[in-house]
Amino acid sequence: MSDDKRPETDRYQRGFPLAAMRTPYIEVDDLILQRNLIRVQDKAREANVLLRPHVKTHKSLLVGRRQMQLGAVGLTASKPSEAMVFVDAGFTDITLAYPVIDPASVEELAALAAARKARVGYIASSREGVEALDAVGTRFGVRLDCSLKIDVGLHRVGVRSDDPLALDLAADIASRRGLRFAGLLSHAGQAYSSTSSDELRRIALEEAELLTGLRDKLIQAGLPAVFISTGSTPTVLGAPIAPGSDEIRPGNYAFLDLTAVRLGLCGPEDLALTVVARVVATNERHVIVDAGSKTLSSDFGPHGTGGGGGFGLAVSSHVAASRELYRVERLSEEHGFVAWSKECPPIGSLMRIYPNHSCAVMAQFDSFVLTSEGAEPQVAPVDARGRLT
Amino acid sequence: MSDDKRPETDRYQRGFPLAAMRTPYIEVDDLILQRNLIRVQDKAREANVLLRPHVKTHKSLLVGRRQMQLGAVGLTASKPSEAMVFVDAGFTDITLAYPVIDPASVEELAALAAARKARVGYIASSREGVEALDAVGTRFGVRLDCSLKIDVGLHRVGVRSDDPLALDLAADIASRRGLRFAGLLSHAGQAYSSTSSDELRRIALEEAELLTGLRDKLIQAGLPAVFISTGSTPTVLGAPIAPGSDEIRPGNYAFLDLTAVRLGLCGPEDLALTVVARVVATNERHVIVDAGSKTLSSDFGPHGTGGGGGFGLAVSSHVAASRELYRVERLSEEHGFVAWSKECPPIGSLMRIYPNHSCAVMAQFDSFVLTSEGAEPQVAPVDARGRLT
Repeated sequence: MSDDKRPETDRYQRGFPLAAMRTPYIEVDDLILQRNLIRVQDKAREANVLLRPHVKTHKSLLVGRRQMQLGAVGLTASKPSEAMVFVDAGFTDITLAYPVIDPASVEELAALAAARKARVGYIASSREGVEALDAVGTRFGVRLDCSLKIDVGLHRVGVRSDDPLALDLAADIASRRGLRFAGLLSHAGQAYSSTSSDELRRIALEEAELLTGLRDKLIQAGLPAVFISTGSTPTVLGAPIAPGSDEIRPGNYAFLDLTAVRLGLCGPEDLALTVVARVVATNERHVIVDAGSKTLSSDFGPHGTGGGGGFGLAVSSHVAASRELYRVERLSEEHGFVAWSKECPPIGSLMRIYPNHSCAVMAQFDSFVLTSEGAEPQVAPVDARGRLT
Repeated sequence: MSDDKRPETDRYQRGFPLAAMRTPYIEVDDLILQRNLIRVQDKAREANVLLRPHVKTHKSLLVGRRQMQLGAVGLTASKPSEAMVFVDAGFTDITLAYPVIDPASVEELAALAAARKARVGYIASSREGVEALDAVGTRFGVRLDCSLKIDVGLHRVGVRSDDPLALDLAADIASRRGLRFAGLLSHAGQAYSSTSSDELRRIALEEAELLTGLRDKLIQAGLPAVFISTGSTPTVLGAPIAPGSDEIRPGNYAFLDLTAVRLGLCGPEDLALTVVARVVATNERHVIVDAGSKTLSSDFGPHGTGGGGGFGLAVSSHVAASRELYRVERLSEEHGFVAWSKECPPIGSLMRIYPNHSCAVMAQFDSFVLTSEGAEPQVAPVDARGRLT
């Protein structure tokens, strides 16, 4: 994304404007956040697809509102209780991109959506899922939007596009009294394991081909116009938007992280989220900071990808140490072991840590600090933190 | 800990009493919890040492009160804001086993402790730490209890017992107007990497020897009686309490987890904390459950130990599948990939997951369910969740 030609280490250097804050804390750079949001909104606009950002990354009403202001058609959520936070705050168009199996798990959400005249779209990938959603729609006397989830290679949730079940389930959804068939939805999460931009392109194209092929079959079978929703941050940033998509649903693009840098999706200067921690001890091999696995998470990358490279990269607030890039080698719950060799950042100094997986870090905190040069820093809640059900 | 001779798989089987609960949720078996708490309290009493359980595992006032009722002398906390929750709730004796570097980080805690007439003990392992705590004590016109943290092999925080700095810092603490020298404190976290009970015994003995050796030197140097606080769950459960300790501070022993089973500290029937999740999809290789890394964490074990064995073991509520032990092989944020070979648990059925690291799981949730045969389940808050500073 960036043409920055500075040495790699320099590209991680930033000031430490909030030296008086209690550590550890999340700092989100507003300028970078806004640039990241605009970049993908522009790309969607140019490709003539709708953008429906996934809130699982930020879980923040503030960031969600930014995304809407910039032109997002609505938002995507992971769990019913996560979606509730956004509907309750006035968002009127949410896709719950998670298979509903227990009708009781979405009754409260469906009731709130009805009361607020919000559209909540659902997905199903099994007969059980269709029945559960139909039961809810029927009970509320409405037709719930229901997309069919297609497995395009992650092998997690979804029907394969060449499985006869795909046609059966689509027809089943379309025939239910409590449902409206809302199209096809996929997530090519295997893109996180990609090792080249060619591979990313191939994954994005294959996803589109599988879905448009199935769409054509569904239309032949008599289903009305079939909407196609795709998208993951790696395919959206690392490849052209594949023809056939009507909508994309990336989440991580808002903050990005070391995983995105490793995948070649962006440079260090595009990482909006960092954790600022304090050096509380030093020894021959490690600087110990007050951010551990309960702060950074133990994630190497999304979907179990990554690994081997530690738990983040760090730069120091200390002048003599500030030209180096340090590796977070090991984590206890509340301690990070940051390896040092040339210059040991002193006790009391700050380190800025670039995490492997920003979505996992955000989920550990109740709030984050939004900073912008020349403006007062703003502490904002992680509104949907802990919404696991 | 257990003499249970049933086949390994059977020892993970339990009923699913709360089928109507929204998933995923944490279930803590009250009987097992109580047995675990009593076992260590008894062991401490028999060894004539005080027990000061670490709250980082449960972050729960309810469990903390149980520990006090059973005879704990006080509690241990990781971060000032975590300690605050317990002092604010009426606990009157807390050790903050974390190095304080920024005086501002404990001013609120010290003020609350003074107002509530609670004793909060602190630790230091550096000149900067002693100065920070002295500044706080001096400002409040009190002498804060300050122990010297000794590194007994984890190489995280602490002065080595043979480092001349140990004597210097102890004397420095004793000489400060705002501090009272409260003794030596250590955590042999390297015990989590142990591969045999002999090694655990050796680590516990070595910890005691290093500390009693230093204590003798300090007494020779004119310091008053030196209190020794040690303890980790592996050494407390896996070895005799080493002579010399006045107090032990295990945390994980309350819930235990697969790490403790792997270390030979307990059996599956001693694991008080499990996560109950629902099967939301199935495919040729995996059952997909609604608990991912945002629920189970991506921890393999404490301090970066463990690994290679997946993210937990699971049993099924489904009759045909209920004799098998399944492995949680991979995690997305909100999905667990549970490998199956013989019997695929069906969509909608429940799975009980035994996590690698119970402390990390508890930190993801706002509440947990305490169950006891014949009694109403109780939903209790994870009071100190998110207290990272």
